[in-house]
Amino acid sequence: MFFNILEIIQKKQNKEELSKEEIEFFINGYTNDLIPDYQISALVMAIFINGMSERETTDLTIAMANSGKVLDLSTLGEIFVDKHSTGGVGDKVSLILLPIVASLGVPVAKMSGRGLGFTGGTVDKLQSIPGYITDITMDDFLSNVKKLGISIISQTHDLAPADKKLYALRDSISCVESIPLIASSIMSKKIASGAQKIVIDVTVGNGAFMKNMDEARKLAKMMIEIGKLANRETVCILTNMDEPLGYAVGNNLEVKEAISFLNGNMPDDLADVVFSLGAYMLKLSGKGQDIEENKNLMREAVLSGKAYKKFEELVKNQGGDISYIQNPEKFEKAKFVKRVESTYEGYVEEIPAEEFGKLASFLGAGRMKKEDDIDFSVGIVLNKKVGEYVKKGDTLFTVFANDEEKAGFVENKGLEIIKIGDVKKDVKYVYEVIE
Amino acid sequence: MFFNILEIIQKKQNKEELSKEEIEFFINGYTNDLIPDYQISALVMAIFINGMSERETTDLTIAMANSGKVLDLSTLGEIFVDKHSTGGVGDKVSLILLPIVASLGVPVAKMSGRGLGFTGGTVDKLQSIPGYITDITMDDFLSNVKKLGISIISQTHDLAPADKKLYALRDSISCVESIPLIASSIMSKKIASGAQKIVIDVTVGNGAFMKNMDEARKLAKMMIEIGKLANRETVCILTNMDEPLGYAVGNNLEVKEAISFLNGNMPDDLADVVFSLGAYMLKLSGKGQDIEENKNLMREAVLSGKAYKKFEELVKNQGGDISYIQNPEKFEKAKFVKRVESTYEGYVEEIPAEEFGKLASFLGAGRMKKEDDIDFSVGIVLNKKVGEYVKKGDTLFTVFANDEEKAGFVENKGLEIIKIGDVKKDVKYVYEVIE
Repeated sequence: MFFNILEIIQKKQNKEELSKEEIEFFINGYTNDLIPDYQISALVMAIFINGMSERETTDLTIAMANSGKVLDLSTLGEIFVDKHSTGGVGDKVSLILLPIVASLGVPVAKMSGRGLGFTGGTVDKLQSIPGYITDITMDDFLSNVKKLGISIISQTHDLAPADKKLYALRDSISCVESIPLIASSIMSKKIASGAQKIVIDVTVGNGAFMKNMDEARKLAKMMIEIGKLANRETVCILTNMDEPLGYAVGNNLEVKEAISFLNGNMPDDLADVVFSLGAYMLKLSGKGQDIEENKNLMREAVLSGKAYKKFEELVKNQGGDISYIQNPEKFEKAKFVKRVESTYEGYVEEIPAEEFGKLASFLGAGRMKKEDDIDFSVGIVLNKKVGEYVKKGDTLFTVFANDEEKAGFVENKGLEIIKIGDVKKDVKYVYEVIE
Repeated sequence: MFFNILEIIQKKQNKEELSKEEIEFFINGYTNDLIPDYQISALVMAIFINGMSERETTDLTIAMANSGKVLDLSTLGEIFVDKHSTGGVGDKVSLILLPIVASLGVPVAKMSGRGLGFTGGTVDKLQSIPGYITDITMDDFLSNVKKLGISIISQTHDLAPADKKLYALRDSISCVESIPLIASSIMSKKIASGAQKIVIDVTVGNGAFMKNMDEARKLAKMMIEIGKLANRETVCILTNMDEPLGYAVGNNLEVKEAISFLNGNMPDDLADVVFSLGAYMLKLSGKGQDIEENKNLMREAVLSGKAYKKFEELVKNQGGDISYIQNPEKFEKAKFVKRVESTYEGYVEEIPAEEFGKLASFLGAGRMKKEDDIDFSVGIVLNKKVGEYVKKGDTLFTVFANDEEKAGFVENKGLEIIKIGDVKKDVKYVYEVIE
């Protein structure tokens, strides 16, 4: 069948639905450099403005997944449940959650991304553990999962190349924030990486892609519908990303927090998010139908040390130096550690996640461009969270910097943007589950 | 002032108005290859879907006009009125109209385009006169106008280069048919070529850009508004382009029809369009305020031979062999001349202009790509027009071809698409004037 890219563009201009074949045509044409950027750019803008139906979005997802290698994880002999987060600040959930569920018999074959902009990436955090290798062959990856029940590596380049190309283009034409385009981007990568069932942490709020519940629900519903149409059962959990998750923002600082959690030190917000996501992973993989019971199983796995042990095994197996895990004090420390004291008394009302992500990134914890290097030791650790009471002189947050001037800037900026007032906010960490 | 192309794209995505400075920024950036195609492509699609205000469109027009040389015709010492047509089939109006008004003292410094697709270009038609040179220097162009009162040449490459680049891009992303983009494209070229006042033939119908009156009125009003804001008084005349204009479609065939007109043989439709446009050119240039009187002046200029003489002078001055004008039988003839007889009896109800333009182009009279060569001698001459009565065996049209197979195809196709029925249509050639 012959298609014409101009006719495809015209259809979208006129708000008509594209057929599966038309979508495959432009995705294949773009991936193979047969259709130039400027034509796809026009098409993407038309999609951005005029939208896409659930059926179109599913076809786009599958076309992008099929644009490169599609991993077959059926050899693992179990239902393979993948986990994804739409991104946030201080989001060390994967580092904690995956060893826990692996310790409970859920196979974890996780490919993670690097951070960009103000959000961190799991791969960067793992690389702050000396020796940890995130680039291994697919064969090693699968044999690791078979042997240990867990492997976490960086996403391979041949996975959903169409999505990679399209995402870079969207970024350069201000077309990132489109529900069908975000949904198909996420789901195509999950499908290509072999997911049979998927649990997605849809973050909502200041530090998330989705700024409000309405948008987050739309995205969640779109992904669940794609999951249905593509025969990949998907559950979305909407979580709070108004303030950073947990206390630490920064690579080895977050690894240390994850180790602390796995050692039984479980702050409410982080525990709530980790156990909710994990409970659904257990459910989807057939390990237990009762969500509350699943959460208890997970808590026990932490308290018994099983989950921590699994994490140590993961790190060791992947070349990491486990003396750092056993003794987190060994992690490289930033030169300047500055405790910042509150100048007001009252309840912490707001710790804007995006701004704190940007401040950590400014210190060197994140990258502005793909090529940038990361400083693993820098970042910010919160000493108070929203809803807590502070007195003048109490430590509000701690800056870890390798540049004194930057530390000073972050201190002032941080004090300026944290809101302290009379209202004791009752914070919810997990908003709702959409299945 | 610093602008960011992503923010400009975002504004248009959100249906916000762009400032004059933002429009200048992206037009200059694009012209100078500082902003890549794919970003402009996205922006153009957002403009296509979300529109542009009259103010924005005027700013776009002026930015494009200023992207290259802007001709100064004030040295001609008269008000310089330019004429433009939005394109059609069998449109030989400029060849007739311009010598007439020049013979009445309106200076004509006309830069014309080449044909593309199914519409012909005045430059191609003039080049079918052996020797006629359409590429001359600006100095020669202006001194010709000073000497003779008329010169018609091809558009120089350094005129509104932004429009040229943007038009090619629009063509490749299905964004041609947008009122603000069409209006700014036309008006930018007119302003760059020195027009102080402008008369525009807005063609409407089957063979025109604008398929219906509603769209044509919108385009006309947009151009008139641009004219006002840019201080270039503009009049639009909406004319019928459902069937080809006059009888001939094809380059030297149309030149012969123009010569015949200038020799006093004035078919109704062509005369109506020519005299209406010319009457407003006379009015705008201050040669006469009464439209009907102006039309009479023009008719007299034809009947007295003054207009014909001016055409001969133009051709001679531009290197053309005037023995062809004096004896049109000398023009190169197509090898196969096929008179096509009607197989029905009744009134001609429809001669679809676009299809006839495409058939002429198929014979070799037009080009599909910019680089294509043109066969000056081929085309189609209608023997009947809409509203006329035909009997079986009457000649309906005549095919001029250099390829017998193509002639046969055009014969059959032409017979198939001309509609003959019971209704005697009363055809209007000039629909309305918008000032």
